[in-house]
Amino acid sequence: MKFVTYLHNAQQYLGILDQQKGILNVVEAGKKQLGKELPADMLAFIEAGPNALDDAKKLLVSTQDWIDPKSVKILAPIPQYKKNVFCVGRNYKLHIEEGARARGVAPTYPPVPEFFSKPPSTVIGEGDEILWDSRCTQQLDYEIELGIVMGVKAKDISQKNALASVFGYTIVNDVSAREVQKAHGQWFKGKSFDTFAPIGPCIVTADEFGDPAGHQLVLKVNGEVRQNSNTADMLFNCQQIIESLSAGLTLEPGDTIATGTPSGVALGMTPQAWLKDGDRVELSIEGIGTLTNTVKKIA
Amino acid sequence: MKFVTYLHNAQQYLGILDQQKGILNVVEAGKKQLGKELPADMLAFIEAGPNALDDAKKLLVSTQDWIDPKSVKILAPIPQYKKNVFCVGRNYKLHIEEGARARGVAPTYPPVPEFFSKPPSTVIGEGDEILWDSRCTQQLDYEIELGIVMGVKAKDISQKNALASVFGYTIVNDVSAREVQKAHGQWFKGKSFDTFAPIGPCIVTADEFGDPAGHQLVLKVNGEVRQNSNTADMLFNCQQIIESLSAGLTLEPGDTIATGTPSGVALGMTPQAWLKDGDRVELSIEGIGTLTNTVKKIA
Repeated sequence: MKFVTYLHNAQQYLGILDQQKGILNVVEAGKKQLGKELPADMLAFIEAGPNALDDAKKLLVSTQDWIDPKSVKILAPIPQYKKNVFCVGRNYKLHIEEGARARGVAPTYPPVPEFFSKPPSTVIGEGDEILWDSRCTQQLDYEIELGIVMGVKAKDISQKNALASVFGYTIVNDVSAREVQKAHGQWFKGKSFDTFAPIGPCIVTADEFGDPAGHQLVLKVNGEVRQNSNTADMLFNCQQIIESLSAGLTLEPGDTIATGTPSGVALGMTPQAWLKDGDRVELSIEGIGTLTNTVKKIA
Repeated sequence: MKFVTYLHNAQQYLGILDQQKGILNVVEAGKKQLGKELPADMLAFIEAGPNALDDAKKLLVSTQDWIDPKSVKILAPIPQYKKNVFCVGRNYKLHIEEGARARGVAPTYPPVPEFFSKPPSTVIGEGDEILWDSRCTQQLDYEIELGIVMGVKAKDISQKNALASVFGYTIVNDVSAREVQKAHGQWFKGKSFDTFAPIGPCIVTADEFGDPAGHQLVLKVNGEVRQNSNTADMLFNCQQIIESLSAGLTLEPGDTIATGTPSGVALGMTPQAWLKDGDRVELSIEGIGTLTNTVKKIA
């Protein structure tokens, strides 16, 4: 089952997304079909837990009230986060090797996941523009990543319990300014310019997505395949990432963890094909969908 | 002028703090003396801008209704952030040198500020316990830091306009798990365990604090002075930090930036005197006050 957040007549709604039928307004359908007030936004819905999800599943049988996705504006699934997006760096072997080669150093493989974050001001949704300020970076890069969306409030989550603590999965583009990422030592600054975290287009529930390993990830720039890999190739799988991140650190419903990118980024190409004005970036993950954004040069 | 957030009879309030008179409830006093509904919490108050501050200043003349700070629970000034706390690493020369010595490497000085973040789940207030889970770290350390609290929504803030964009200043203890900080490459994980960001006890307004350079910082553990330095010794001053961080990154009212710590951390001592169960950590910054927390071993 897939959920989206969308704008319709300037109002923000939580919707169920069905590839054939379109989008169903959760609150409206809940009132009409179940006589219930279901949570009105994604965070509240995730916080409401399995009962809300069970109610939403009952709405899938609706034969009316589905609206055309083209008639609305899809937003990031969680348009206003309450904390930064958690991110994992260097989590695919070939990506580590292309990065080391580009920087002229020997590859090293992290013994534990490397975490950093992107503030809520980076988050944009399907169709929004990635803003490129050439005064800030001349090395604008893309990174397709599987995003984990947590379903529970918990810390010290074991690998065994990790997947049961997940609400669902989404696509994250961990847009990066490479020379800034390098210059500041810590990666935060080069990863945190406004609009540098396109997320979406939907959240697919954990039960529908199944094992998070084994899903193909493909990123295209202007139709050209740049990244083409599989989540099975992660150095640290989703269970290991959740266990490591949540050790002594309380995760909450809606918290999103970008799990690292495979090889094929512009940094690793010869010559390095940085993103430029007007570039169309399409990220697809098997079982989720496609997230498309365009680069707009603003300075 | 100083502001606090406090709990009284299980309700959370915004208060004016006066060293002699005590705490004045902003909303109650505003109604009584100005016939106005002033913002009810710190974030809303900062967002309301200079007019709210002017109104609050009028309340200072009150001769009644001040309550004893001991009769309430002081919380972190912003108890529920909407994003991670921004942090600067390695921003005092002697601290860089003690860290390099402890790690057996040559000191390097960053050419630009090194930014990272701590999630809202790390934030605690005056008197709260720093939780030490010995399964997560055996190298629990403290770091006194001047915290900048932003007053406006803006990006690309120049050094010239930087201080005018600040609402006020506070004290941040950037609690750190040193072996975790090192193991994960990026500093995020070792800095982000629950309760690892005591903040407070108040926010002093920018006009009262004056030039943020030139304020003494003193940190004591069980009464012993460990850190004793001055904000004038920062490698990158507050103006440079704000300019660098806000380049292409929108800062918002209430956003807090911890500006790095001077020398004297446990990591740099011989032998290394890590924090342990029951330790009392007191952080004082000239012009702000004292933030006190106790370490509690939970495992």
